[in-house]
Amino acid sequence: MAKQVKSVSPVPLNDELDIVIPTIRSLVFLEVWRPFFEKYHLIIVQDGDPNKVIKVPDGFDYELFNRNDINRILGPKASCISFKDGGCRCFGFLVSKKKYIYTIDDDCFVAKDPSGKDINTAEQHLLNLKTPSTPFFFNTLYDPYREGADFVRGYPFSLREGVPTAVSHGLWLNIPDYDAPTQLVKPLERNSRYVDAVMTIPKGSFYPMCAMNLAFNRELIGPAMYFGLMGDGQPISRYDDMLAGWCSKLICDHLNLGVKTGLPYLWHSKASNPFVNLQKEYKGLFWQEEIIPFFQSLTLPKECDDAAKCYLELAKLIKEKLSHIDPYIVRLADAMVTWIEAWELFNPPEQAVPALANNVKKDAQAPPKKSK
Amino acid sequence: MAKQVKSVSPVPLNDELDIVIPTIRSLVFLEVWRPFFEKYHLIIVQDGDPNKVIKVPDGFDYELFNRNDINRILGPKASCISFKDGGCRCFGFLVSKKKYIYTIDDDCFVAKDPSGKDINTAEQHLLNLKTPSTPFFFNTLYDPYREGADFVRGYPFSLREGVPTAVSHGLWLNIPDYDAPTQLVKPLERNSRYVDAVMTIPKGSFYPMCAMNLAFNRELIGPAMYFGLMGDGQPISRYDDMLAGWCSKLICDHLNLGVKTGLPYLWHSKASNPFVNLQKEYKGLFWQEEIIPFFQSLTLPKECDDAAKCYLELAKLIKEKLSHIDPYIVRLADAMVTWIEAWELFNPPEQAVPALANNVKKDAQAPPKKSK
Repeated sequence: MAKQVKSVSPVPLNDELDIVIPTIRSLVFLEVWRPFFEKYHLIIVQDGDPNKVIKVPDGFDYELFNRNDINRILGPKASCISFKDGGCRCFGFLVSKKKYIYTIDDDCFVAKDPSGKDINTAEQHLLNLKTPSTPFFFNTLYDPYREGADFVRGYPFSLREGVPTAVSHGLWLNIPDYDAPTQLVKPLERNSRYVDAVMTIPKGSFYPMCAMNLAFNRELIGPAMYFGLMGDGQPISRYDDMLAGWCSKLICDHLNLGVKTGLPYLWHSKASNPFVNLQKEYKGLFWQEEIIPFFQSLTLPKECDDAAKCYLELAKLIKEKLSHIDPYIVRLADAMVTWIEAWELFNPPEQAVPALANNVKKDAQAPPKKSK
Repeated sequence: MAKQVKSVSPVPLNDELDIVIPTIRSLVFLEVWRPFFEKYHLIIVQDGDPNKVIKVPDGFDYELFNRNDINRILGPKASCISFKDGGCRCFGFLVSKKKYIYTIDDDCFVAKDPSGKDINTAEQHLLNLKTPSTPFFFNTLYDPYREGADFVRGYPFSLREGVPTAVSHGLWLNIPDYDAPTQLVKPLERNSRYVDAVMTIPKGSFYPMCAMNLAFNRELIGPAMYFGLMGDGQPISRYDDMLAGWCSKLICDHLNLGVKTGLPYLWHSKASNPFVNLQKEYKGLFWQEEIIPFFQSLTLPKECDDAAKCYLELAKLIKEKLSHIDPYIVRLADAMVTWIEAWELFNPPEQAVPALANNVKKDAQAPPKKSK
């Protein structure tokens, strides 16, 4: 179904994780990732002009989808996928058949840990995703499942099994992920601090999720990883990952799933233009002052017992409560519904894994679905 | 008023912070802290036999209070101060006249940072306490006020001023602060991971507060730093700091004050005996399974607009809702009230600083108080 499909990796392919890369340029950056990425299937989402040829270095197993492919594959539902914006990456989440997704930007390179060793980001993300999270009580020695660490005195024993991890948010050395005003004020600031920790973001607490170095469990939280309507024809950009972060954190909290942040670091090479960024994000800078408190105030109903149901409910609430901000919000809420319809075409609900929620009762009987 | 008062420090004394040390032995450990501690006034709370002579190295400015002193100074209210338990340290918080307290255990020594430099814990705690906290939204690059860091893209601008910091919880290299069962299972585990971060524990999230390396703002949260009834004559021990942690976090969240954890590290030299510890803490290990969810469910009334009022309300709620656990809980709740009475004798309410709470309206008119 894709324009280009190559399967030429010289190593056996990993069957758990796909790497999703949105791009507008040739993917020479993959050369430095070769030792770590060659065993994974890559899903490349080409943004912008579909006639441009994106060069992928030899020896990688990949599919590449351009805008023509997206339009052909999704038909009218392709309207929910952003154009001329990195938010188009979520198309790759939708067509993946793997349990885990790792998505990375093409201006990111391999970083070194303090001992000088190259950091294998994909491996650390998989470790983060396969070990539990601890959202209900803060462990002061950070990740209690890590070698050399544990739960400290006073940590409730009933909470030491943790909950399944849905999201692993990695960080960036060199160019930090700042908004345009901060970029303008601190053009020379570089992040050189390697904080050797992974931690669970506590239940009820929101954070700015950046998609530069992000992994998640598609089965548990995939439907919530929609990157919105951004870029071409929209009044806003650079809030694609923020939207996905607000929605996925709310839904993880509701379903008792974990979100981790910290390791692994990668090397972010190039600061984007702060003036261009300001134009893209300026509406978001004030809209977020209303949208974030809205998310902080939400409670989802108990009947929402998987990520897709939660997401549809959230789309409804956003339309009801936030559409006074701008007519755009109505379009966004509608696109959120379209996204779930598209998601379910590729990921039929009978295959969805119900979240291992403690406080959410699963429907006794799901309606039978016809096989495709 | 103290048994021993010496003022012989060769350097000018700091007028902001007192160091409180509970002990049963001679304080030779202070020798290694001399370069960092000699400019602070020490409040030494001697536990156990008051006739034992505690040797304090020359050149420190200190007061030393033994049990006879505590009984004489507090009279009948001395019953709220634990005996034969490190929880007696809170007497030192009460008699201090400084804005900040740093309390440390006498088996803790100076640690080195990864560059090999000795860590000045008191200085880092003061820095933590004097810079704001960010409890309402998680910053993925940790403390945004630190040199080389800032708020990341997507952090609400309206929250970037932060809130006053009330508590700074430092960590430990070498012997981690484990409960007895974990000590028994992992007798050889040592913490060698230096995590170069300070972070705010988000609002609504509880954590196990350890008093081994702890600092706080007395004016903002002092009344909540009561270490309970532990040790001699009580069915429980080793939960003195946990109690203070639950209460102070609840009250900080209510008053919109911040709690930080992370740096500074110190070197914890000696694991306590796990069999003795198990005997001390075993009731706590199951009581906490009920007490922690109780704290997580609490909301304090708006009228409670300072730490002392919050604490009295909390004492009432504990007596009402938790006394079925054990008759001890009633004694504890009564002691919490006695503690506030004692606190207010030494720290008259008219001197208390109202918290800079956003959501708590201060009484327009406080009732006039007689001066002492």
